[in-house]
Amino acid sequence: MPDLALVPRSEFDRARADVADTDLRLLVLADMCRANALTAVKRAGSGHLGSSFSAMDLVAFLLFEELNTAELGWEHPDRDIVFSSKGHDVPGTYAALHALGVFPDERLLLLRRLGGLDGHPDIGVPGIEANSGSLGMGVSKGRGMAWAKRRLGRGGRVVVIVGDGELQEGQNYEGLQGAAHDRLSGLTVVVDRNELQSDRPTEEILALGDLEAKLRAFGWHVLTCDGHDPAALRDAFAAMRSVDDRPHALVAHTIKGRGVSFMEHPAALEAGGGTYRWHAGAPGDDDFAAAHAEIVDRVNERLAGLGLTPLTLEPVPALEPQSVGSLEGEPVSGVGQPAPRPRVTDEYVAEAYGAALLDLVQRDERIVVLDADLASDCRVRGVELSVPDRFVETGIAEQDMVSMAGGLARQGLLPVVNSFASFLASRANEQIYNNASEGSRIVYALHYAGLIPAGPGKSHQSLRDISLLGALPNMDVVQPVNAEETRLLLEWAVVDAPANVAIRLAIGPSPRRIELPDGYRPTPGRAVELVGGDAALVVSYGPVMTHEALLAAESLRADGIRVAVASMPWLNRVDQGWLAETAARFAEIVVVEDHAPVGGLGDALRRALAGVELDRAPRVTVVGVEGWPACGTPAEALRAHGLDGASLAARIGALLA
Amino acid sequence: MPDLALVPRSEFDRARADVADTDLRLLVLADMCRANALTAVKRAGSGHLGSSFSAMDLVAFLLFEELNTAELGWEHPDRDIVFSSKGHDVPGTYAALHALGVFPDERLLLLRRLGGLDGHPDIGVPGIEANSGSLGMGVSKGRGMAWAKRRLGRGGRVVVIVGDGELQEGQNYEGLQGAAHDRLSGLTVVVDRNELQSDRPTEEILALGDLEAKLRAFGWHVLTCDGHDPAALRDAFAAMRSVDDRPHALVAHTIKGRGVSFMEHPAALEAGGGTYRWHAGAPGDDDFAAAHAEIVDRVNERLAGLGLTPLTLEPVPALEPQSVGSLEGEPVSGVGQPAPRPRVTDEYVAEAYGAALLDLVQRDERIVVLDADLASDCRVRGVELSVPDRFVETGIAEQDMVSMAGGLARQGLLPVVNSFASFLASRANEQIYNNASEGSRIVYALHYAGLIPAGPGKSHQSLRDISLLGALPNMDVVQPVNAEETRLLLEWAVVDAPANVAIRLAIGPSPRRIELPDGYRPTPGRAVELVGGDAALVVSYGPVMTHEALLAAESLRADGIRVAVASMPWLNRVDQGWLAETAARFAEIVVVEDHAPVGGLGDALRRALAGVELDRAPRVTVVGVEGWPACGTPAEALRAHGLDGASLAARIGALLA
Repeated sequence: MPDLALVPRSEFDRARADVADTDLRLLVLADMCRANALTAVKRAGSGHLGSSFSAMDLVAFLLFEELNTAELGWEHPDRDIVFSSKGHDVPGTYAALHALGVFPDERLLLLRRLGGLDGHPDIGVPGIEANSGSLGMGVSKGRGMAWAKRRLGRGGRVVVIVGDGELQEGQNYEGLQGAAHDRLSGLTVVVDRNELQSDRPTEEILALGDLEAKLRAFGWHVLTCDGHDPAALRDAFAAMRSVDDRPHALVAHTIKGRGVSFMEHPAALEAGGGTYRWHAGAPGDDDFAAAHAEIVDRVNERLAGLGLTPLTLEPVPALEPQSVGSLEGEPVSGVGQPAPRPRVTDEYVAEAYGAALLDLVQRDERIVVLDADLASDCRVRGVELSVPDRFVETGIAEQDMVSMAGGLARQGLLPVVNSFASFLASRANEQIYNNASEGSRIVYALHYAGLIPAGPGKSHQSLRDISLLGALPNMDVVQPVNAEETRLLLEWAVVDAPANVAIRLAIGPSPRRIELPDGYRPTPGRAVELVGGDAALVVSYGPVMTHEALLAAESLRADGIRVAVASMPWLNRVDQGWLAETAARFAEIVVVEDHAPVGGLGDALRRALAGVELDRAPRVTVVGVEGWPACGTPAEALRAHGLDGASLAARIGALLA
Repeated sequence: MPDLALVPRSEFDRARADVADTDLRLLVLADMCRANALTAVKRAGSGHLGSSFSAMDLVAFLLFEELNTAELGWEHPDRDIVFSSKGHDVPGTYAALHALGVFPDERLLLLRRLGGLDGHPDIGVPGIEANSGSLGMGVSKGRGMAWAKRRLGRGGRVVVIVGDGELQEGQNYEGLQGAAHDRLSGLTVVVDRNELQSDRPTEEILALGDLEAKLRAFGWHVLTCDGHDPAALRDAFAAMRSVDDRPHALVAHTIKGRGVSFMEHPAALEAGGGTYRWHAGAPGDDDFAAAHAEIVDRVNERLAGLGLTPLTLEPVPALEPQSVGSLEGEPVSGVGQPAPRPRVTDEYVAEAYGAALLDLVQRDERIVVLDADLASDCRVRGVELSVPDRFVETGIAEQDMVSMAGGLARQGLLPVVNSFASFLASRANEQIYNNASEGSRIVYALHYAGLIPAGPGKSHQSLRDISLLGALPNMDVVQPVNAEETRLLLEWAVVDAPANVAIRLAIGPSPRRIELPDGYRPTPGRAVELVGGDAALVVSYGPVMTHEALLAAESLRADGIRVAVASMPWLNRVDQGWLAETAARFAEIVVVEDHAPVGGLGDALRRALAGVELDRAPRVTVVGVEGWPACGTPAEALRAHGLDGASLAARIGALLA
């Protein structure tokens, strides 16, 4: 980690006071926010810079000039409201809120950290008006706020910033039609039209076509401007005042990565060979230093041009390296301070999934792989590049993806549907139900399942997916514990499974390589014992929680308590024979869940136990993720939920005492 | 029930052979189908006539002339595919399939009956290409089929019929943009543009605006025609052949209720005082007779004009009255043949909900009631009419409705969100999660929860809703057992509940008026004992299953087995004190669920039991709706799942033996 420095609030106050030209002032303030967003993301190890930067001039214009919010106060009923529907751009918003004194330096430095700033917007942070991060809900929510303001006779407009890629979500069109029907002129949607979605052009992923024509066809007052030009933004917002019978849409043309030459579209896209590298994740040390210097230099040049002194930055304390965790980075599983912490491995079950899937696709002509703009994260880019004629990119449109898969399956193809678990199992739930009701076979890959990584926050952490799919009559929900089992379970899902399969996958690196017995094959409903013991059986699943369970067992063993640990890849199906044997051996079963304690494996085991004849049933204790998932590093989040190895050891020890 | 008669297949064959003029033949065939759809719906006691009739000429044109499906065979890989995305119009489609010999008379007469024809399309019925009934999935599914045909080099087009009201669902726009991006010229969407949704004009509920402009803005080849004119339909489909770089949309202007003068829009809308009566439900005897006569007379006049003899109809055997069940009609709970069957009551918990809600709205200015085009079914029309400024109609757009409610709640209002449980808990699941994550208070009314009425089929029956919402950290799921408790629970939800509440409601009449103790008030987590006993405790919820549980207890008592019956309105929250007392009293607890056996009350009880210290825990047996819900009368469906009183008595008796 290089030396980091923050633009302190005092420097924002100076710029606001001393830069007389309004437009220049806004450009300088936006750049100062860019510098701080960059620093916060670098320190967090993760975050979305590309869209923070594309929306930065817009956010600066709104918060520093156009809206009354800072002036009236963040809780005033007549305040203007602005929030980002996409939410990925929140580092930039945080930087602006920090500049306005909404929270102190210390909190900005706790981006994606426990007790700090969530990786996606959460109203627990002052100045954040709506939770977002999962896409496409903002127009509807803004519509509700504007309707309420009108109903309650409150002043203030509602401005919703949406991404252009985000407009692929169908819910936007529900919100657009409803707001037009209600003639909600108090609602403005600003499209951050940067023409790139996660890492490829919107026109390639799923063309928006004539966006202005679409918005007009939905009955909105539509304007277009340069989203980096304060004067143009000012003119556009002024023009809205003359139309009061319709909601307003402003298509603000922007540049993803704006403000850092090598992050700017289209140059950055070319440099990446057609892939944009700066959508998510922190830059490396050299890139960070170059980017930060470029922004600060530009600010200083502008200040110098006005005869003002350069920025004075405040050094930022370094992070303890073991606390760093990120989606793209290296999550480290915590075992409780201050015990030594094992390094994570280079095993990614998601990568094993991608490789196994490509292999299966090449062998089986029936397989079609579907993606909703998460091809890199879901590790299906290999299929996209190698077998493009059986790869379908639906854009950010999970419901369409799932129902399209239903149509493919009705034609005898075997769809493998990919997205993050929190989006796929939830937003497309009824579509999955509908497909399942047709009795076709579809594989749903639920990426980024579970608590970790915890930096992106609750819009992304998936702790309900087993419960959301478990009641379907013909759906097996499974999760592999290592790379080898990932391949085996995917093959089972594609080749042998009787019906639909949802395969949960951790997205980060495995905290350890978990060894399975030689010649192991997953057998439906049966767990595999990793460590022997007699005091209790700890059952877990997936690489993250199974690692913590193993740590707990190791810790307990040091205290003379021998608990067995089993990995259970079958999350809603239990083999009665296995259960009968197991229940006869153990008086205590502890289920460690990478899921809410409701609707997960623990519930499935208890259901199955009711069908087993036993003299005395074992006690089943479920240790899951209670409440809302914590945002933070992996170590912080696991510890906060009492799910790190040390906490588990203590909890299990207390249970057995 | 009046005497019913069917147009037999032989008469369709005669018309196809003897009516030389193609257009006239199609009109005659469509009317013959109308007559049979009417008869089938009358016999079933329920079904959607309005949109069956508006789409009938279109369906006749497609199946009898334009498409190759009947000729190639219903399983041929190169066949044209047509299906209805809305699915409500399936009685008309069934009539056409019957006319083509796909299934015999007997099956057409089993509309909405066990082993017959599902109330919404299900691929288990020959000739039905996709499951539908829940709206908005068809474009995406058709897109998948067309993509697969192109990929597999198969012949045949894919035609998806969508309703105009249905176009309010956002998923349509996902499918539209995806199909345009893929240049799927093999896909045609026909909009049955009858300008009415369930019972009001589309322009009133949620204006579609310039529909053609919308479709063009999404990149489609758009045509418009009279959907009742075979020649116009023929021309439109011919014009599609000249455009092969885009998918095709045909806006077919139709008349809801077409073919029966008093069911036709706009006359019927005026006659109903602004409400269209013929969307769903079977007509009364006189209306049925008049409608049937009008259709048959028109056919006979046309046949006479060609010198052909009038139709020969086949009498239809009457139904046993106790087997009749319907959404709008009178569900009768079965107690097993041939025992005498108690009459249903005139209590509707849904009506009690509507009345209590109106009362609360009038007393509490914060409450805003939201509806997604089910105002009559959800009994919120009273609020709409009496307090229109706090009633929001979002059209058929559940996700928008829920996120809009989130925005309202963020402004301090208290939204009460209404839809059918199967749509609300599932399609808007992620939006509910997002709202809940903001910590605001929202009440979700899950109408039509459970198995009954079973006629509409699995798209409408809701057996997963508890599982879909139960894992949220701040959501209580409750269900009242009678009208009085409905009022009490709604008041609790609005006034006292700590967080979000989902209130499950049966939609049909209560099979009995269940008495609660004098002065009863629902206490969170505690059941109320309705009948004493010591052999076991049967726990149930809602008027339907609690009635069956009581019947079972009465039956067992006659055999000397005294089981207690408790009504448990709290479906995901259990008071540990109550549970400890209960567990100490009973060795056997049987949970009778109006839900899948996964993720319901039974799982909640078992979870709670794990936290109670007991010498010996009672055995908890869950008797829920296993597998896919049966379609049929209430008696048929309950019996099919072993959930009628007699079956329950037998199951509980065996358990205790």
